[in-house]
Amino acid sequence: MSPQAPTPAYRRLSVEERRVQLLEAALALFAHRPPEEVSLDDVAEQAGVSRPLVYRYFPGGKQQLYEAALRSAADELRLCFDEPREGPLLARLSRALDRYLAFVDEHDTGFSALLRGGSVAETSRTSSIVDGVRRAAADHIMSHLDVAEPGPRLHMTVRMWITAVEAASLMWLDEDKQPPVDEMRDWLVEQFLAVLTVTARRDPQTAALVEALAADL
Amino acid sequence: MSPQAPTPAYRRLSVEERRVQLLEAALALFAHRPPEEVSLDDVAEQAGVSRPLVYRYFPGGKQQLYEAALRSAADELRLCFDEPREGPLLARLSRALDRYLAFVDEHDTGFSALLRGGSVAETSRTSSIVDGVRRAAADHIMSHLDVAEPGPRLHMTVRMWITAVEAASLMWLDEDKQPPVDEMRDWLVEQFLAVLTVTARRDPQTAALVEALAADL
Repeated sequence: MSPQAPTPAYRRLSVEERRVQLLEAALALFAHRPPEEVSLDDVAEQAGVSRPLVYRYFPGGKQQLYEAALRSAADELRLCFDEPREGPLLARLSRALDRYLAFVDEHDTGFSALLRGGSVAETSRTSSIVDGVRRAAADHIMSHLDVAEPGPRLHMTVRMWITAVEAASLMWLDEDKQPPVDEMRDWLVEQFLAVLTVTARRDPQTAALVEALAADL
Repeated sequence: MSPQAPTPAYRRLSVEERRVQLLEAALALFAHRPPEEVSLDDVAEQAGVSRPLVYRYFPGGKQQLYEAALRSAADELRLCFDEPREGPLLARLSRALDRYLAFVDEHDTGFSALLRGGSVAETSRTSSIVDGVRRAAADHIMSHLDVAEPGPRLHMTVRMWITAVEAASLMWLDEDKQPPVDEMRDWLVEQFLAVLTVTARRDPQTAALVEALAADL
């Protein structure tokens, strides 16, 4: 790929910088409008570039731009889960949730589109981007809990909680971001402990974890 | 619609009976194969009818048949939630979950396709069919709990639990239907009570419900 800038720019961007600029423009638009209402013209205007330039970077048109934007948002979302393996476990989860909720808050409609599969065109590729993020979240949690091989009950419980957090985030956006973000975060952490505690009654692996979490508070 | 039977049938089916027969054939196939791997030929063969007959009932082809099958499965799923308003509340929830899990067990891959949006072609119509079922489930729960106007925290908690149940069902299918269905059902009921209890700490409406549920046990 060696696109030529069609208009003289006050500063010549590298290919990668330009790409990032276009994706950011697209994500900014998706944050306020559903993807099917965002045209390549809008993206060009938002980025202050010509439409042909957008096509040069995304020759597959809107679908390709949309998938690239999803992938970029997914990468950013994964970064939220990065948390040093230090200090009390539930405090780590709280910090990760703070970053996650800030991401949801910032991307708004774009976040809904990401999770709802996006309506431009749901494909197995877009689904697998979102599923990859869910798996990454579960892996991070297992790693912080020092669980190398989660049994089915523990695995199910953690994945159920992750799905519930997603659902809560979408409803939170629908409810004009109420309750306040700090309350949301604490409430989600408490739910995490509560569902693990329920599973602990039937599963020794989860029971040991719940004990460790309680000792850690 | 007054289709003529192309081959003499040992018993002439009414239009509606024929339609139901074709949908059942389609659902039976979707239970074992993802929708994109099921052709109209397969449906005709499964139902023991000619391919033109399938087209006569579903002139929109595979997408129309698929949407009709989703709608039929969604209607069946809604029936699972019908429960007399009598007896202890959590026992009612248990019975509804028994029927729901039996539905999941029976429809298997077809259930996954329904919830995963189905890959034949995800459209706003197919998404809204599934969302309608989720809303119906939440409405049933609120009605049994005698809550006419759920506040945002209670509403969120119930919807989160419903989403978590969906996620659990999909994983349960992936895990060869382990843990056993009775354990799944009890575990899901316990999670329902646990997440409501967490919300009750911050929400008087939910607190009153949890008290009523505890008194009812």
